[in-house]
Amino acid sequence: MGLVVQKYGGSSVADAEGIKRVAKRIVEAKKSGQQVVVVVSAMGDTTDELIDLAGEVSPVNDGREFDMLLTAGERISMALLAMAIKSLGHEAQSFTGSQAGLITDSAHNKARILDVTPGRIQDSVDEGNIAIVAGFQGVSQESKDITTLGRGGSDTTAVALAAALEADVCEIYTDVDGVFTADPRVVKKARKIDWISFEDMLELASSGSKVLLHRCVEYARRYNMPIHVRSSFSGKPGTWVGNEPQGGQSGQGETSMEQALISGVAHDASEAKVTVVGVPDKPGEAAMIFRVIADAEINIDMVVQNVSAATTGLTDITFTLPKTEGRKAIAALEKARAEIGFDSLRYDDQVAKISLVGAGMKTNPGVTATYFEALSNAGVNIELISTSEIRISVVTREDDVDAAVRAVHTAFGLDSDSDEAVVYGGTGR
Amino acid sequence: MGLVVQKYGGSSVADAEGIKRVAKRIVEAKKSGQQVVVVVSAMGDTTDELIDLAGEVSPVNDGREFDMLLTAGERISMALLAMAIKSLGHEAQSFTGSQAGLITDSAHNKARILDVTPGRIQDSVDEGNIAIVAGFQGVSQESKDITTLGRGGSDTTAVALAAALEADVCEIYTDVDGVFTADPRVVKKARKIDWISFEDMLELASSGSKVLLHRCVEYARRYNMPIHVRSSFSGKPGTWVGNEPQGGQSGQGETSMEQALISGVAHDASEAKVTVVGVPDKPGEAAMIFRVIADAEINIDMVVQNVSAATTGLTDITFTLPKTEGRKAIAALEKARAEIGFDSLRYDDQVAKISLVGAGMKTNPGVTATYFEALSNAGVNIELISTSEIRISVVTREDDVDAAVRAVHTAFGLDSDSDEAVVYGGTGR
Repeated sequence: MGLVVQKYGGSSVADAEGIKRVAKRIVEAKKSGQQVVVVVSAMGDTTDELIDLAGEVSPVNDGREFDMLLTAGERISMALLAMAIKSLGHEAQSFTGSQAGLITDSAHNKARILDVTPGRIQDSVDEGNIAIVAGFQGVSQESKDITTLGRGGSDTTAVALAAALEADVCEIYTDVDGVFTADPRVVKKARKIDWISFEDMLELASSGSKVLLHRCVEYARRYNMPIHVRSSFSGKPGTWVGNEPQGGQSGQGETSMEQALISGVAHDASEAKVTVVGVPDKPGEAAMIFRVIADAEINIDMVVQNVSAATTGLTDITFTLPKTEGRKAIAALEKARAEIGFDSLRYDDQVAKISLVGAGMKTNPGVTATYFEALSNAGVNIELISTSEIRISVVTREDDVDAAVRAVHTAFGLDSDSDEAVVYGGTGR
Repeated sequence: MGLVVQKYGGSSVADAEGIKRVAKRIVEAKKSGQQVVVVVSAMGDTTDELIDLAGEVSPVNDGREFDMLLTAGERISMALLAMAIKSLGHEAQSFTGSQAGLITDSAHNKARILDVTPGRIQDSVDEGNIAIVAGFQGVSQESKDITTLGRGGSDTTAVALAAALEADVCEIYTDVDGVFTADPRVVKKARKIDWISFEDMLELASSGSKVLLHRCVEYARRYNMPIHVRSSFSGKPGTWVGNEPQGGQSGQGETSMEQALISGVAHDASEAKVTVVGVPDKPGEAAMIFRVIADAEINIDMVVQNVSAATTGLTDITFTLPKTEGRKAIAALEKARAEIGFDSLRYDDQVAKISLVGAGMKTNPGVTATYFEALSNAGVNIELISTSEIRISVVTREDDVDAAVRAVHTAFGLDSDSDEAVVYGGTGR
């Protein structure tokens, strides 16, 4: 008998009606002969409401108590979901993260999973129950305190449980139909991706695609656990993420059963650009700059260093970081100006990043040329470039981002009504 | 160093302001040099709101899932309370019932405490923390499932923890100033009781006094754990419940350091009266009647059997029970009429019970006479009488209950501006 882990997010269980709808979907899976384990998030805005309450009571965010507070949300949704399933005549039992064996480290609010020991869950489904597990939460190995996994933690709970239970698939139910070749709000002709590799999904996730978080995909890749992202509203097949096409899904159009050339175009307008101007071009300078940034606990994304001007021996170093961290980064660098010895700082938060992702680009020459020609034809100027094996990211003006994404999407034949094969000239990227 | 367990009910922590007010009170106790363990209920109407949600999702009350759901309420209040204390510069940690070692049986919604193993709580206070414990909840010994203790369970949690931790006192904070000699809404001159014995408190609790539940007092008596019932709003000393006056409290007025003659007058209008008319006066008849009632899972209170009429050999048996059970009791008895062989049933829910409670009555003759004279002078007719060692209860018309309580309260010198000693004539009750 197969075992499926299904995960439902807060928007799917926002109210009593949503909970009953989800319960029916779960029961259908059970009736099809599978063992079913369900991971559920807190209802709708519950978590935000609890955070507001905490703010009213105390200005200090205490990690341990904050986790204790927030985990009340899943406790409510999972118990209600179990009740709704039982009222449909099927047996269900709900379990906290701790009861489900989600063992974490002690980093409150952003705990890492250390081990998963789902003995009670396995027993429960073996007895014929549908097991409902609280997402987002665990228990610390050391202190036995309640922990939470941080943003998007419920998806990670689902994948981790699926791996530990050796499930056939981890189904992530959400309010969209799957992963698209671009953000459908920007590109009307964006196409739902039927299948995408872990690697491409990881690049999309770290380039601005919001459907799955990097962390959850990374976990799935490590344990080779296929993810099926789909809508809890429509019931249609969604996007399979995995090493190979699964579940009767074919790949995209004519490239079915083969790696797609380009998986999609992601964009991200949440970052800002910092340029450190006039840095002495000698060993250790870049290290000093990024040590200052690291000590301020700021995560950076792209880093670009220009070739230094021969006449001055000075160079510029540019990096991107979340807009929310901009003020902190500038302050930290200003403080270290004498030590580092740069001329000035430039800060620009009117930028956006566009990323073209696809493992196929490794073996297909001309991708970069087609990409940059498309941007050029759309009148979009490129300010920064950064590449990985299977991704090319550029930074442009924020105002240009929608036009840029549409142009690139069309240029690579990703538009839903376009069946044209794209022919590349040039000599690789 | 002394240890105090404080319990705060839902009305004391109904909102952020309430939580902050309670936090200040807790910190004061800690500053006075005591170790402090706090038991807290869910905020205000949280529990009712969760029950409503469950009703929307499913018509069936599933014990296990219901308990999982309801315990979210304390999880929220305890985490917020810990945060509020920390924002005042003191260390606090919150614990679920399970973490606090509240081990129960598996009777969901009404679990009994089997054991209390508060090792984590003791460690936490030994490290200098204020420990906050979720009231009302535990974990079942057998299945490790989350359980709840039923109505008023948080008071029982507090007393059980206090006993296991060998606390000096269990302080129960509520929205009234303590236990009164009568319901202050009925008797304007009702007096706050400074000290009352476990036995008298048990009788008051089972006679209609709502401040403490019978179960909690019973637990305290078994472990000889003094309870101090007081207001979380006023901060004034409240009522001590225990084997002897404690904490510098004197007894009532002139009888200080001695058992009070009469502790108070309780009343209860929630019961109805059933009379089984024309029962053959032979062995086994009463047993048959109460077996029928017990099989219907109805708890009864008073039972009175008249002396049978010599001419007919028939007698009447009257008992009281909660009004809410009246219909069920009548139906059950009607069904068994042929077997039992009675003539008819009478049902009356326009009655009330008035109880005079005080261990002093055992050794003070004339209490009954004074009691009944007071009722007679107030024009109140007595329909049933039932007594214990330290309590005399009568059933009257419901319309008469306020006048009756006031008359008795005055007759025994309990009125707050009355310092008269009451002199009894007669020969015992």
